[in-house]
Amino acid sequence: MNYKMIVYIMGQILRIVGFCMILPIFVGLWFREHHIILCFAIPAAITLAISLLFTLKKPKNTAVFSMEGFVSVAASWIAMSAIGALPFVISGEIPNYINALFETVSGFTTTGSTILSDVEHMSRACMFWRAFTHWLGGMGVLMFVLAVLSSNDVRTMHMMRAECPGPNVGRLVSKSSFSARILYGIYITLTVSEIIVLVILKMPLFDAVIHAFSSAGTGGFSLWNDSIGHYNSVAIEMAISVFIILFGINFNLFYFMIIRRFSLVFKNEELRVYLGLIAGATVAVGLSLIKQYGSVGEAFRRSFFMVSSTITSTGFVNADPGQWNNFAQTVLLLLMFVGSCAGSTGGGLKVSRVVIIVKTGIRELKYLVSPRAVASVKMDGKPVEKDVVRGACNYLILFVLIFAVSVLVLSHDSFSMEENFSAVTTCMNNIGFGVGRFSTGYLGDLDSVSKIVLCFDMLIGRLEIYPLIMLFAAKKR
Amino acid sequence: MNYKMIVYIMGQILRIVGFCMILPIFVGLWFREHHIILCFAIPAAITLAISLLFTLKKPKNTAVFSMEGFVSVAASWIAMSAIGALPFVISGEIPNYINALFETVSGFTTTGSTILSDVEHMSRACMFWRAFTHWLGGMGVLMFVLAVLSSNDVRTMHMMRAECPGPNVGRLVSKSSFSARILYGIYITLTVSEIIVLVILKMPLFDAVIHAFSSAGTGGFSLWNDSIGHYNSVAIEMAISVFIILFGINFNLFYFMIIRRFSLVFKNEELRVYLGLIAGATVAVGLSLIKQYGSVGEAFRRSFFMVSSTITSTGFVNADPGQWNNFAQTVLLLLMFVGSCAGSTGGGLKVSRVVIIVKTGIRELKYLVSPRAVASVKMDGKPVEKDVVRGACNYLILFVLIFAVSVLVLSHDSFSMEENFSAVTTCMNNIGFGVGRFSTGYLGDLDSVSKIVLCFDMLIGRLEIYPLIMLFAAKKR
Repeated sequence: MNYKMIVYIMGQILRIVGFCMILPIFVGLWFREHHIILCFAIPAAITLAISLLFTLKKPKNTAVFSMEGFVSVAASWIAMSAIGALPFVISGEIPNYINALFETVSGFTTTGSTILSDVEHMSRACMFWRAFTHWLGGMGVLMFVLAVLSSNDVRTMHMMRAECPGPNVGRLVSKSSFSARILYGIYITLTVSEIIVLVILKMPLFDAVIHAFSSAGTGGFSLWNDSIGHYNSVAIEMAISVFIILFGINFNLFYFMIIRRFSLVFKNEELRVYLGLIAGATVAVGLSLIKQYGSVGEAFRRSFFMVSSTITSTGFVNADPGQWNNFAQTVLLLLMFVGSCAGSTGGGLKVSRVVIIVKTGIRELKYLVSPRAVASVKMDGKPVEKDVVRGACNYLILFVLIFAVSVLVLSHDSFSMEENFSAVTTCMNNIGFGVGRFSTGYLGDLDSVSKIVLCFDMLIGRLEIYPLIMLFAAKKR
Repeated sequence: MNYKMIVYIMGQILRIVGFCMILPIFVGLWFREHHIILCFAIPAAITLAISLLFTLKKPKNTAVFSMEGFVSVAASWIAMSAIGALPFVISGEIPNYINALFETVSGFTTTGSTILSDVEHMSRACMFWRAFTHWLGGMGVLMFVLAVLSSNDVRTMHMMRAECPGPNVGRLVSKSSFSARILYGIYITLTVSEIIVLVILKMPLFDAVIHAFSSAGTGGFSLWNDSIGHYNSVAIEMAISVFIILFGINFNLFYFMIIRRFSLVFKNEELRVYLGLIAGATVAVGLSLIKQYGSVGEAFRRSFFMVSSTITSTGFVNADPGQWNNFAQTVLLLLMFVGSCAGSTGGGLKVSRVVIIVKTGIRELKYLVSPRAVASVKMDGKPVEKDVVRGACNYLILFVLIFAVSVLVLSHDSFSMEENFSAVTTCMNNIGFGVGRFSTGYLGDLDSVSKIVLCFDMLIGRLEIYPLIMLFAAKKR
């Protein structure tokens, strides 16, 4: 294991985080929150100092294999979260460090669960930083990593593997800083577009920036306790729905659109299933809600927004799903596990993985009927590589096992099984709101042990299990 | 598809069921419940008539492949349940046919969930029949099938595959009526031993027979509303615990004991994990209950009984787990999914399958660290065949998918998500009691659609998914 190189990579990632922590200082200055400046300046300085120390000497041996890639990514996310929590503690806005850490992990993993029962009293600078962790986390450290590592290098692919969510990364042009720039460009363009659209729809600029950051990362932090419901505007809800659905699409497809290979987009099976699920769930949930809301329009307004917020793992709300009928809640619960497309900023198991898993199940049945006629699992009309199928199925297995252990550990706390189940579901799938009691996404009442387990679950979900396990397995070698 | 042969096999199975329905008549005569005689005589006569019709002419082509095997098993279970429900309806003790069907499916699948809020007012004959369905279902129609089919024939193995619970049947001597007789012998010996032990412990004979039948099938029907708790006897609880644990062991191991190959028993990994889980869970749950029961002895008494009742999927209770702390309840919930050993009368995923699944997950992690060094999954020190590993993993996938769909369908009813989850858990794993609201195993308040879905889930769980799916897939071919 090339420890020196891991430290070096961490140093480079921390440098970016350090610089990013300077941004909230400007926000603080603009909103005349002068007391907040030091709260960000000190951690930023510490982070940059550590980063300098870590990158002082470039290791002679720069070889990075998948093990090193996984470990440095996992270690970086933990370090980022540990440092990113400091401003909340220093400013006294989240005095308890474990709580601040939970909030920051929830931010970087784009989960959106919170330990704050009242977010509205936060300073603007902290609010900005909180949403900004979503934006940074959204595309994963992929951005950083691709940007800081030299370009035409095989090893960057290992980073990609750990970063890019989903069973199959897909070849985005080539494995180089060029592709990083394309992703960057798409990400920034979509974010800025959303800010502009929201401002046109009369959302104040600061609010628009916060919600665009949250949307981009499919995170879910808002500056209002009642989230997007606060504006009570159908136009804003529709706009945000459309944007989060876009952020839940595989970013490769945007690239295909740019180079005008539209057929690749239209033929994409994952996209069709994803949009089909959104349409189907919206109709099913909408119909079930007509009675409760008394009008078809209102029912479908809530349904469409909540369905898109759930499947993309964003976690914005314009209704309290805890008040919905069980059918609607169960549909949302299932969508939480399905998640968004691979290669997007969304969470969950990922649509393509679910498609592969379902097809594997069907194939198993066919196999039992006639063992000789075993067809391979197909996606987009082409057979899926065996390794990808195995990976998807084993991902489900690990997911289920980690889920079970987490619920077991949480059971020491004073909450019911349903609540523990809900908390683990929302964290492992990086959603932000839950079902039942935790439907608001407020997890502040849990004890520290539970919070740490949930931090681990959020990271596991975001990094898709492997890097984090590697980190703990690494010591043995 | 050899439809004629399927009908012929069904006819043979129905003949046995028909004769078995005569037994409760004698019970009715003994207890002077003369009104009950016709309630059993009529369905028995109908069943025997149908059986005669089905077996009138032996088909020329007697070839039975796995497809035919699966389909005839699934069809037989459904037919048995449909007919077995008649005495309850005719006697008026369960007037609603759907309820009676649910009760009978719960019996034959050895689940033990009930739609009766008060079992104690049932006639003795019906009580006997109810428990006897457990006993019949316990070892699966395997018994019938092996007994009625000609002996030295490859096709019986296909039956075995559909009947014998677990990922790997294992070679029990040879695939012949000889092995059927051995299994039969072990099953009857254990049942009779349990009756004798219970009578010695001062349980009335009729009660002892009922509870021995329930234990043998790891079913869970009792003649008291408070189940085994009714006797308030530590000795009886201990004895039943030991017997259900025995019935949860792979029956092959008893054969190995008979032929004095003890090393095969001691080396059996599944057995060790199974006993280890029982011991571990008993201690963990027991410690957590000391506060509630105020004494170590009482806590461990409840813990040991409930843990063994849960992991073996029996469903007898000597406490209300709904009143336990969340940790204890969560442990029971996880044990429900683990289930007992393959090749036993118990339900759940089966210990060996869980072991294979966990090892596959660990192997996947190892594979990611160093892709070249892929070791195969081992059981009992020997590599497990790829097909078995694939089968175990895909079983989990199908289990999860069917589970999700069932919870979704149940959500139309008026129960909470937790309750639906609990109902599906107890039915698919053939347990009998649940967690939360359904902790008593009483499912009578659900509507008919939900009950039918749960009947399907019980059959799916008992027959391990495939035969039932085959039945519905069969029409296409």
